[in-house]
Amino acid sequence: MDVKAKLLEGNKRAAARIITWIESGDPRGYECLKDLYAHAGHAYVIGITGPPGAGKSTLTDQLVKRIRKTGKKVSIIAVDPTSPFTGGAILGDRIRMNDLTSDAGVFIRSMGARGYLGGISEATAPAIKVLDIMGSDVIIVETVGVGQSEIDIVKHADTTVMVTVPGLGDDIQTIKAGIMEIGDVFVVNKADRDGAKRTVLELEAMLDFNGESPWRPPVLQAIAQQGKGIEVLIEAIEKHEQFLRESGVFEAHRRRNIKSEILELIKKAVMIRVNDHSETEQMLDAYVDQIAAHEQNPFTAAEQIMAHIQFK
Amino acid sequence: MDVKAKLLEGNKRAAARIITWIESGDPRGYECLKDLYAHAGHAYVIGITGPPGAGKSTLTDQLVKRIRKTGKKVSIIAVDPTSPFTGGAILGDRIRMNDLTSDAGVFIRSMGARGYLGGISEATAPAIKVLDIMGSDVIIVETVGVGQSEIDIVKHADTTVMVTVPGLGDDIQTIKAGIMEIGDVFVVNKADRDGAKRTVLELEAMLDFNGESPWRPPVLQAIAQQGKGIEVLIEAIEKHEQFLRESGVFEAHRRRNIKSEILELIKKAVMIRVNDHSETEQMLDAYVDQIAAHEQNPFTAAEQIMAHIQFK
Repeated sequence: MDVKAKLLEGNKRAAARIITWIESGDPRGYECLKDLYAHAGHAYVIGITGPPGAGKSTLTDQLVKRIRKTGKKVSIIAVDPTSPFTGGAILGDRIRMNDLTSDAGVFIRSMGARGYLGGISEATAPAIKVLDIMGSDVIIVETVGVGQSEIDIVKHADTTVMVTVPGLGDDIQTIKAGIMEIGDVFVVNKADRDGAKRTVLELEAMLDFNGESPWRPPVLQAIAQQGKGIEVLIEAIEKHEQFLRESGVFEAHRRRNIKSEILELIKKAVMIRVNDHSETEQMLDAYVDQIAAHEQNPFTAAEQIMAHIQFK
Repeated sequence: MDVKAKLLEGNKRAAARIITWIESGDPRGYECLKDLYAHAGHAYVIGITGPPGAGKSTLTDQLVKRIRKTGKKVSIIAVDPTSPFTGGAILGDRIRMNDLTSDAGVFIRSMGARGYLGGISEATAPAIKVLDIMGSDVIIVETVGVGQSEIDIVKHADTTVMVTVPGLGDDIQTIKAGIMEIGDVFVVNKADRDGAKRTVLELEAMLDFNGESPWRPPVLQAIAQQGKGIEVLIEAIEKHEQFLRESGVFEAHRRRNIKSEILELIKKAVMIRVNDHSETEQMLDAYVDQIAAHEQNPFTAAEQIMAHIQFK
């Protein structure tokens, strides 16, 4: 049986192989996706993000365990965009609990940015698709860090859970201010620590400051390591899903993602053509020489190369 | 006098205006850059990165003060990619010392990702160019966070300083492992804290583990708030610059950056054309409908649209 048929049957190894193809730029990865694309669209995608040390992995593990009790199949993508060179992506595996990895209804995949041309955030979307096609009911995308690429990754999530902890210091407070808008549900983890109440109040104040919006993100408390607060978190996610579907935002998001998927593919194809097309490739090299010698500028170079790219 | 002439004279307001144009997608920004491009290439670019709370701003401030004593003109770009929505980029301004902002030989610019189409990392490169043309001798690009976009930003730096602090916990240790390769110089800041020695040893061990390379990054200690360790840091940066120039890596990096500059501009131009060209624009919308209805896939859509883009 071929890998595509296996993926449709829910085979985890098939999923792992296809994701590896996608990561490494092997065209077979995209061929599978292309042929099976119509089978995607069933899974609900939850993004888990927040600063390092917030306990995202532990929270994710607890969340998955609880969701598994309902019989739903869950996939986890642990994204570590900070590992672009070393083959990275050890984080998820390292911390991940053993009882999860032995559960047949759970698939775990760590992704670094190893070798992937377009940056990790571009590989995440097709990986989500693969796991969707595999038959996952829920896909959790967990990211490390708080940068732009994490925000790009989270765009593919239906519900984004922002995890933070009390007392991460002033720098983190500032960061929090910047990423408020990507959170649909906020969780103050390690809520038995000093200052948890204060962090909750600060988050609520920031959300108030952001003004009226059709969805007011709840600010929850959890102690993930003791399994506390997980039930409430699941309820909040379900409530958000209900809001998305009833308001039409769900549909709008999916359409936006489809459009950006197409545009990303076009970008990639154009880059390949510019680099491969003998005339534009030669032009490119010649321009680099001229610009390095201060005899030309990249803008004119891009314009001249664009003159060789025609839209009919 | 027009803004271009003013920029060439070192006028900071002209620089600020042009950078704002670039950020907001105003074509005048790129026109200025295009016309003045030949005047760039003089400045040395230092990247400062590391996890939140590492004291990057304080270290940058101290570094700038020390460099200013040599009479060199310094520009700082404080990039906060975590502020994509709120207009962000308050971080740099908030913490920045007053005595720096009143120094005529220092230019400070904070950049968030507000409104910028291509992501913050794409706006950073042209901003560096503007400050280069303005006559900066040294440009320091300071980033918050440790994600992919920070790594992208740092690509434009000649020397990258990775700042960390003792005892940031296990999560951070793992991150450190991932971003080792982007550091040319390592600084353990707040070195009077417990565990500083251990952090230094760990970093050294990781660097040893990475194996032989023509440049072995030094691991320094600093207490930025007391101005300690800054002199040694400057020496290390100078030594790295010398290595880059003598080994030919400097030239190779600049060429790589020129090439990616051209390709980025082409990407942007193609995206604009796809969205504006009436035929491809209609196709795009129609495909989004079909894909949302599970009747088509983005790969075929991209291929069909690409068929309308010809290379001659």
